[in-house]
Amino acid sequence: MNYFNQQDTICAIATGGGMSAIAVIRISGDKAIDIVNSIFSKNIKNVKTHTIHFGTIVYKNNIIDEVIVSIFKNSNSFTGEESVEISCHGSIYIQNKIMQILIKKGCRTATSGEFTIRAFKNGKLDLSQAESIADLIASENKATHQTALKQLRGGFSVKLKELRKKLIDFASLIELELDFSEEDVEFADRKQFTNLLDQIQIELEKLIGSFKLGNVIKNGIPVAILGAPNVGKSTLLNSLLNEEKAIVSNIAGTTRDTIEDELNIMGYKFRFIDTAGIRKTTDTIENLGIKKTMEKADNSSIILFLIDANQDISKQLIELNKIKDIAKHKLLTVINKIDINPKNLKNLKNAIYISAKNNKGIATLKEKLFSFVNSKELSNNPTIITNIRHYEELQLTLNEIKTIKNELDKDISGDFLAINIRQALFHLGSITGEVTTDTLLGNIFKNFCIGK
Amino acid sequence: MNYFNQQDTICAIATGGGMSAIAVIRISGDKAIDIVNSIFSKNIKNVKTHTIHFGTIVYKNNIIDEVIVSIFKNSNSFTGEESVEISCHGSIYIQNKIMQILIKKGCRTATSGEFTIRAFKNGKLDLSQAESIADLIASENKATHQTALKQLRGGFSVKLKELRKKLIDFASLIELELDFSEEDVEFADRKQFTNLLDQIQIELEKLIGSFKLGNVIKNGIPVAILGAPNVGKSTLLNSLLNEEKAIVSNIAGTTRDTIEDELNIMGYKFRFIDTAGIRKTTDTIENLGIKKTMEKADNSSIILFLIDANQDISKQLIELNKIKDIAKHKLLTVINKIDINPKNLKNLKNAIYISAKNNKGIATLKEKLFSFVNSKELSNNPTIITNIRHYEELQLTLNEIKTIKNELDKDISGDFLAINIRQALFHLGSITGEVTTDTLLGNIFKNFCIGK
Repeated sequence: MNYFNQQDTICAIATGGGMSAIAVIRISGDKAIDIVNSIFSKNIKNVKTHTIHFGTIVYKNNIIDEVIVSIFKNSNSFTGEESVEISCHGSIYIQNKIMQILIKKGCRTATSGEFTIRAFKNGKLDLSQAESIADLIASENKATHQTALKQLRGGFSVKLKELRKKLIDFASLIELELDFSEEDVEFADRKQFTNLLDQIQIELEKLIGSFKLGNVIKNGIPVAILGAPNVGKSTLLNSLLNEEKAIVSNIAGTTRDTIEDELNIMGYKFRFIDTAGIRKTTDTIENLGIKKTMEKADNSSIILFLIDANQDISKQLIELNKIKDIAKHKLLTVINKIDINPKNLKNLKNAIYISAKNNKGIATLKEKLFSFVNSKELSNNPTIITNIRHYEELQLTLNEIKTIKNELDKDISGDFLAINIRQALFHLGSITGEVTTDTLLGNIFKNFCIGK
Repeated sequence: MNYFNQQDTICAIATGGGMSAIAVIRISGDKAIDIVNSIFSKNIKNVKTHTIHFGTIVYKNNIIDEVIVSIFKNSNSFTGEESVEISCHGSIYIQNKIMQILIKKGCRTATSGEFTIRAFKNGKLDLSQAESIADLIASENKATHQTALKQLRGGFSVKLKELRKKLIDFASLIELELDFSEEDVEFADRKQFTNLLDQIQIELEKLIGSFKLGNVIKNGIPVAILGAPNVGKSTLLNSLLNEEKAIVSNIAGTTRDTIEDELNIMGYKFRFIDTAGIRKTTDTIENLGIKKTMEKADNSSIILFLIDANQDISKQLIELNKIKDIAKHKLLTVINKIDINPKNLKNLKNAIYISAKNNKGIATLKEKLFSFVNSKELSNNPTIITNIRHYEELQLTLNEIKTIKNELDKDISGDFLAINIRQALFHLGSITGEVTTDTLLGNIFKNFCIGK
């Protein structure tokens, strides 16, 4: 796919598929207004930008629909090109029909993310901002929304560009030295350069460090649920889930597929990982299950140990004891079924007492789960990396920076320095898109929505 | 639900649910601009109507999204009220968040069809036009689209209103006569009145008559498929279906749920009804099956009798002979599997020869199926009734008109005439909405999309 063929005028259905009140078809490119004008009941050739026009789509003397047409001119559009949006009735037939007519009139259907690619190519967004749009659209809770929006608004790419610019200046000076190599001059102040490298290293390590949080925000905070059978795991999950559902269904007309074990708590995604539980056994297969449970517990950010107040608590505590090494700093002991046998309760230190069935203690549990999230880090940090590509490029940049520092220490020749600086610049530039290739763009945008 | 509470400013997500490139939230009512202005980064209080503004939605100092806002003022909107459309990124989180903020700022979520109800209440559409919007949105082929769009554009309600107006004039004259009843005067010319009634009757009968076609257009043309087992019914259906699928999938980014036995042929929906087939049998249960087959065949508009060229054709023709009475004028004999045994073919009169497997003869079959549809009637007739409510009201009107004519013939007193004329006016008026009740509106709009 040649993403550089910006001569084409592209079109796509930009709203959700299927039947709905209205649907929006987006057209962008040099001929956008001409093409829409040829099928619209009013002349829109000379109308002002950012104006709306009511009329009909007419093709071969047949009226297709009554629509509203929005005009974007003089590069004041999302893509930076002449653009038109047709807002039609949300019938599948009408949407397809208008698309067919647009194609007959000379449009091409847009590929995934092609509108955003054009916005990037036309300098409306840098690459990391463009990438954030996919995250923004996919955002399903407060945390993912906040990080994606910050990135869209240029949060961390501004700082990267600034550092990269300074590095370019040094690269030029070093390369200038190479031109005068026989004269043994130093244009680039080595002390200043080392200072800059230190500064870059600090910034890179901060960004790389933020990826752990970013990843958790994007993919959910893993919570391993441990406990004996029948302690009420699924009742607990339902109880946590139902409140959330109530919030979502407050708004009519929206549907939401809920994946059973992913819960949104106070704006963060938590992934609840059910385990086989831990029991003393000589059975090989069961032992494998326990090994797996331990692995899951180890890889989780939180271990939720669920105890049934109505079963033998001492026995359950023995099991808890077995995981105390891996559970350090991330254990949450929860006593369930306090409604049935409240007298049987021991006063366990730091435990949370709930009745999942009666929704008692659930709010406290949520707060406790939330306390594991360093939400301050999120709100105070404008530079959280959530994208694995960015993470990898930052790592590669850091490696180069470390190499350069090492070379400076050892007073290694400018030739080698120059090569490593160029490498560092390449990796940094590929994050914000100052360095791009077709292959890179193709990979980045292949999973984008059509119409964006 | 009080549909008359137009004091409220209403909001709804108007585009398809789920994740998409963009989503549109529609707001309508006196406070639409004020409310959006209070959460928008730019001042839109005094902007011109039909203008577009790029900015951010901000709530409690948090940016929620970068959006485009479209302004409709001075009753130049769909609803006839001040309206705003917010075009945001199509994240479910963002859509819900903006809806929540709008509600906090004083909007109410719209009920099904409430925007359309307001358009009707504000005189932007009559009731039959408003009803057509639901049909337009649900339209899935050329024929349903065409009839719904014609109705939206006022096709048949114009004529009904005109006739109703004339009838009102006569009603007034007749009622005037009643005031002067002791003087035995006739203000209403009985001959002219009879002429009008004849004219109305012709129009009503034309509309009522069109309902058969309208119903077929809306619900599909029923085709009963008959034939021995293994003659290739499902291969035939797939063959018809696949071509259609190819047309639909030409357009990237659209998905379409296909119900197996409903096919779109040349813009019309055909419903293929599979049957148990007809065989000579003494088995009671099988006999019941055959009885059902006969019923299905009888109720269909087309009987497609499928013959396997590779089985004993004479034997199959005997079966065909059994249904010749009910199949009269609607039989389509199709010989399948001509690829396997072309020499075994008898030259059957009017039969179509196909190979469903190799897609041979399918185009001819489609044309033949299409020839059963009186498509001229569709394109030449601007007044096709597809709505059962309209059909019923038209029937009731016709009954009253016939009664009035009868009364005129018998020279029955003006009191009775007046009552029946008022009844006829009531039924006619309830179609176009000149007569409405809350209950009627509630019933009509309860199945509408939210956001329309």
